[in-house]
Amino acid sequence: MDDAAGLAIAFKEAKKSYEQGGIPGETATLLNAGRLPASTYANSTMYTTLSPCDMCTGAILLYKIRRVVIGENSTFKAAGEDYLRQRGVEVVVMDDQECRTLMERFVRESPGVWWEDIGVVGEEKREEGR
Amino acid sequence: MDDAAGLAIAFKEAKKSYEQGGIPGETATLLNAGRLPASTYANSTMYTTLSPCDMCTGAILLYKIRRVVIGENSTFKAAGEDYLRQRGVEVVVMDDQECRTLMERFVRESPGVWWEDIGVVGEEKREEGR
Repeated sequence: MDDAAGLAIAFKEAKKSYEQGGIPGETATLLNAGRLPASTYANSTMYTTLSPCDMCTGAILLYKIRRVVIGENSTFKAAGEDYLRQRGVEVVVMDDQECRTLMERFVRESPGVWWEDIGVVGEEKREEGR
Repeated sequence: MDDAAGLAIAFKEAKKSYEQGGIPGETATLLNAGRLPASTYANSTMYTTLSPCDMCTGAILLYKIRRVVIGENSTFKAAGEDYLRQRGVEVVVMDDQECRTLMERFVRESPGVWWEDIGVVGEEKREEGR
């Protein structure tokens, strides 16, 4: 599978989740993948529409996934991307307009869910988003 | 609550889980804590019997927990501890003998579960542990 095809699947999942009012992340993908042998993860590429948060970064490292393809990192970028590279993971950013548009819409329409998802401290942001 | 009392609670949970054949981690604690305001996590200390794996390290960062007290780090130590410090989290290692004894016993008796939990690559280790 090439990266464009992989990212298209990730985008489809993100869009489905958006339509249901949620936001799917990398941990959901790992959960859905079930309990696989360690070598399967190690030989996988993770496709994700947005830049991984700190927890997903940790999950990627725990599973020893060696390659991560990111749709876009302009809506959100945590320290995870750099840390993944530092730990030897290949990180590819596709700069995909479709992913960006979806994420921008999601953040605009559901700021409360978004802020909680990325662990923003401060009640005021949460309240504002409700 | 002082650190010894906090760690005693973590140890009790780890022992209960050991008796049930499992191994509880930091993510289980966060799950059991439910959905709390972001400021509650930020003002919390995480007590854990062993050194956090990469995924738990990521969870701690996502929740913006500022202080982590670790029972012992001689049985297991991932890169997480250093990364937490690098990101400004206060990390205290208690060097607790009771925690070490429990973990050593768990690793000896259930190597398969242990290796899978820390994401060890290589089927041979998994097979060996079964």
